[in-house]
Amino acid sequence: MSSSTATYPARTGESRKDFLAVFPLIVDELLTYMKMEGMPQDAVKWYEDVLNHNTPGGKLNRGLSVVDTVKILQDRELTDDEYFKAALLGWCIELLQAYFLVADDMMDQSITRRGQPCWYRVPGVGNIAINDAFMLEGAIYFLLKKHFRGEKYYVDLLELFHDVTFQTELGQLIDLITAPEDNVDLSKFSLEKHHLIVVYKTAFYSFYLPVALAMRMVGVSSDEAYELALSILLPLGEYFQVQDDYLDCYAPPEVLGKIGTDILDNKCSWNINVALKHATEEQRKQLDEHYGRKSSSSEAIVKSIFSSSNIDIPTKFAAYEKESYERIMGEINKVDEEKSGMKREVFEEFLRKVYKRTK
Amino acid sequence: MSSSTATYPARTGESRKDFLAVFPLIVDELLTYMKMEGMPQDAVKWYEDVLNHNTPGGKLNRGLSVVDTVKILQDRELTDDEYFKAALLGWCIELLQAYFLVADDMMDQSITRRGQPCWYRVPGVGNIAINDAFMLEGAIYFLLKKHFRGEKYYVDLLELFHDVTFQTELGQLIDLITAPEDNVDLSKFSLEKHHLIVVYKTAFYSFYLPVALAMRMVGVSSDEAYELALSILLPLGEYFQVQDDYLDCYAPPEVLGKIGTDILDNKCSWNINVALKHATEEQRKQLDEHYGRKSSSSEAIVKSIFSSSNIDIPTKFAAYEKESYERIMGEINKVDEEKSGMKREVFEEFLRKVYKRTK
Repeated sequence: MSSSTATYPARTGESRKDFLAVFPLIVDELLTYMKMEGMPQDAVKWYEDVLNHNTPGGKLNRGLSVVDTVKILQDRELTDDEYFKAALLGWCIELLQAYFLVADDMMDQSITRRGQPCWYRVPGVGNIAINDAFMLEGAIYFLLKKHFRGEKYYVDLLELFHDVTFQTELGQLIDLITAPEDNVDLSKFSLEKHHLIVVYKTAFYSFYLPVALAMRMVGVSSDEAYELALSILLPLGEYFQVQDDYLDCYAPPEVLGKIGTDILDNKCSWNINVALKHATEEQRKQLDEHYGRKSSSSEAIVKSIFSSSNIDIPTKFAAYEKESYERIMGEINKVDEEKSGMKREVFEEFLRKVYKRTK
Repeated sequence: MSSSTATYPARTGESRKDFLAVFPLIVDELLTYMKMEGMPQDAVKWYEDVLNHNTPGGKLNRGLSVVDTVKILQDRELTDDEYFKAALLGWCIELLQAYFLVADDMMDQSITRRGQPCWYRVPGVGNIAINDAFMLEGAIYFLLKKHFRGEKYYVDLLELFHDVTFQTELGQLIDLITAPEDNVDLSKFSLEKHHLIVVYKTAFYSFYLPVALAMRMVGVSSDEAYELALSILLPLGEYFQVQDDYLDCYAPPEVLGKIGTDILDNKCSWNINVALKHATEEQRKQLDEHYGRKSSSSEAIVKSIFSSSNIDIPTKFAAYEKESYERIMGEINKVDEEKSGMKREVFEEFLRKVYKRTK
């Protein structure tokens, strides 16, 4: 296996920096393969740009979580080879996310992502971005084959990526047909739909996948342990997304780092679904008229309904947050570390990062 | 494994009809999974339409080849379970092709495919087609997991699909950046580029993949046998694509079943690359001026250059066809059936279908 012969960059102990230092090696492996296959220089350069424009540059929470979880489960410093493998799995999630985001931005006709133009809007790219998205996904299986083919859990890694990819695509499908930007129909919305969308579109790949990959890597093999991880991480992912929806409307833009556009964009967010559940007939009429319209006066009307006394999203969110935290903490406390082979700390660490975040 | 408990449709012996009869079972398995996951009815219906609009309806040559190859290698009638499994692998290639074609049509801004509107042009679909393409690919791994998970060659099937998918995407990338429809630059073209494009974009998934899947299914496991298959099927696939390029320009539309548009569309076809190789300075100037322009008078000028006496594509194609046939037949005749575990008939059957076809 080539990873055992690779030269690893020296680790500094700064987790983000160390993780980022692995990415150029990954790019190099992919480009070396292309060159060996005789691909023309302009195609090699193109793929290099695709990888670099779309993969690093985000918060890297998902990728870093793999490394953090492996460390907690091993309960010791990782060897160079272990670190590299864990980071590689982390980058595979970041590649999966890049694949989704390149496509999502095209489907949503977004303008910028992570402070730079969306990939399809870079001059000369356009619809070629569809094939570029495919090739970001393709990188995952190339890397898994190169570095994990000899491991007995190789096929488990492949299935994890297949399953979670399909689940995320299902979530994206429901989201796309429930909340198209150009056709507002609030009768399609519900808290049940919102639950399905956030679990499938976000929680599986952002919360379950990093932990499950780490578990495979350290040799956890019982089905029960994976069921346990799901039972805690999917609710945690849902709570995270509800926060995201709440902050989009209620966090000060200077704290959030962007201006929320969920109301303008007809998003099937937690806020609108809670509002729909509690709205009077008159409020519902106003929401039907003003939600998802590209107008700041419409947006202001929706916001005022969200904060009206009978709906009062902030108070309902505070209650939701408290209830979620206690319920998830309760589930974590029930974990039998001996029996499951899992560590409560894995889940506590996730919950700690998410609870009462303000951005 | 569920396939052993499934009820199979009765076989009639008509290969296309029997193969088509398997598809509704596949659709049913995918939709049943979605319903079990609690997906809303409109999402289930959407995916049903995606599968039915994009997967059957073509010539099904790739899918049928898997079944034919398994039959030849087994050298006996297949049991119901064997037939179903072979057909399922065949449909997985058709799903892979559907994934590529939905995306290709968007990237090429095509209007129709197989006599109906391209999927992205169906009212209400638009850019959602990107996620639909993803879900056509996703179906492959769902089906392989459901029906082949217990087989010792399961991981080999997964790797075959991963490898060939990535290779096809590489071919598509070179094609997209070499021959963009809106920017004619013949200096990027060459017969070497053409070779790379057709091998990567077409030959791997259309010729090697069906045979390699069949070989895995019947238990061929030596690396040499797969190398042998590659060494015959990639040249065969290249020959097939050169024919395709030739027929696009020279077959009567009433025989071909469509009107060729390669010249208008700036395609990096065999014809133009041969022409560029043999063109005089004056002819080259004309080609630079008229190739890839949306004008029938420009197209006529290019066609007359293709048929001019010093270039004479028809004569060069006839020579290419003869040389290819003899070279590939020579390779097939060298196959040691005993030693490789392969049958010459597998390759002969492919060559027979391709040689001197007129459409």
